[in-house]
Amino acid sequence: MTMQARAQQTRRTIIEAAADAFVTRGFAGASLAEIADQAGVTKGALYFHFPSKAALASAMIEVQREANAELAERVDAYEGDRLELLVDLTRALGRRLVDDATLRAAMRLAVERGEVEDAVISETYTRWEQLVAEVVRAAKERREVAGHIDPERFARFLVAAFTGLQTVSLVESGLGDLDDRVEDMWMLLRPGLTVG
Amino acid sequence: MTMQARAQQTRRTIIEAAADAFVTRGFAGASLAEIADQAGVTKGALYFHFPSKAALASAMIEVQREANAELAERVDAYEGDRLELLVDLTRALGRRLVDDATLRAAMRLAVERGEVEDAVISETYTRWEQLVAEVVRAAKERREVAGHIDPERFARFLVAAFTGLQTVSLVESGLGDLDDRVEDMWMLLRPGLTVG
Repeated sequence: MTMQARAQQTRRTIIEAAADAFVTRGFAGASLAEIADQAGVTKGALYFHFPSKAALASAMIEVQREANAELAERVDAYEGDRLELLVDLTRALGRRLVDDATLRAAMRLAVERGEVEDAVISETYTRWEQLVAEVVRAAKERREVAGHIDPERFARFLVAAFTGLQTVSLVESGLGDLDDRVEDMWMLLRPGLTVG
Repeated sequence: MTMQARAQQTRRTIIEAAADAFVTRGFAGASLAEIADQAGVTKGALYFHFPSKAALASAMIEVQREANAELAERVDAYEGDRLELLVDLTRALGRRLVDDATLRAAMRLAVERGEVEDAVISETYTRWEQLVAEVVRAAKERREVAGHIDPERFARFLVAAFTGLQTVSLVESGLGDLDDRVEDMWMLLRPGLTVG
């Protein structure tokens, strides 16, 4: 392995260790020493990659941005009912949260506050809201969503509701019931979205 | 003022200072030194009332329990449409969150993790879920809510969705748009709850 490849692997290992620590103990509760320990690197090596917890948080948020971009491409590629696309997006995000500890940590950062800037957290929500609003606008044009639905307000609701579902699901079932919760949400929302 | 009254007032002052610190910096990010400073007491006096941050967190959660009990009494006293009672409960909780920094801190504790036991947080959600499910069962009997709605699943959704609304509203608008978000939620949910 080249030095560069080794450095990249160390970086990934540290990010995963930090993700575990953030999910278990919260951002402010996790210590750099414990993260270094878990990643099997010295504090010096950790410091070389990430000089602060804030730098680690930025790396997590970067991972979440990549996940968002991936979902945005799904939007472009999708053919068919736009309301089902929204359902599909929330299902996909739910599954990714279960599978990917780093994304889970990024979502935890978004509901915690403190050392992470509110502006950074708020931006994460805003990107999601824009993506959803765009899909709802298309759905309205195609008459797959009723005309009285306001895309921006619905998007604001969906993003916040999903945030709550994953927050409570993590505490109550370690995300074990998240997919079930997502289905319940759509069962409750569909009539209001489609009935004029 | 008697010694006892003075002690109670100091206790309240400390709880309010801790609430401010928890909301601003998160539970793990807030320090006892800073809380003592803000409350205008010595660290020794603070320690006398609350030997740890966990003790302060318990006091917050106690405040939230009292708020829940108050809302439960509202349920018993309410006459009329049970669905409107649910709307009323979420509106009342939204207003209390805006007005009461200690309740806000308790809600923040419920979405953070780390030093606060998951079991304690989970219990808070469960109490809410039970209260809502009970109202929905009554609403179904009175045919104010459609027969296909499962009270427990709806309650699980409502509690999680509201948790998300207040989480995102705090970051995006300092709770300024919370009441608006609550109205949007009910506009979206009503058709699915009432249309058979």
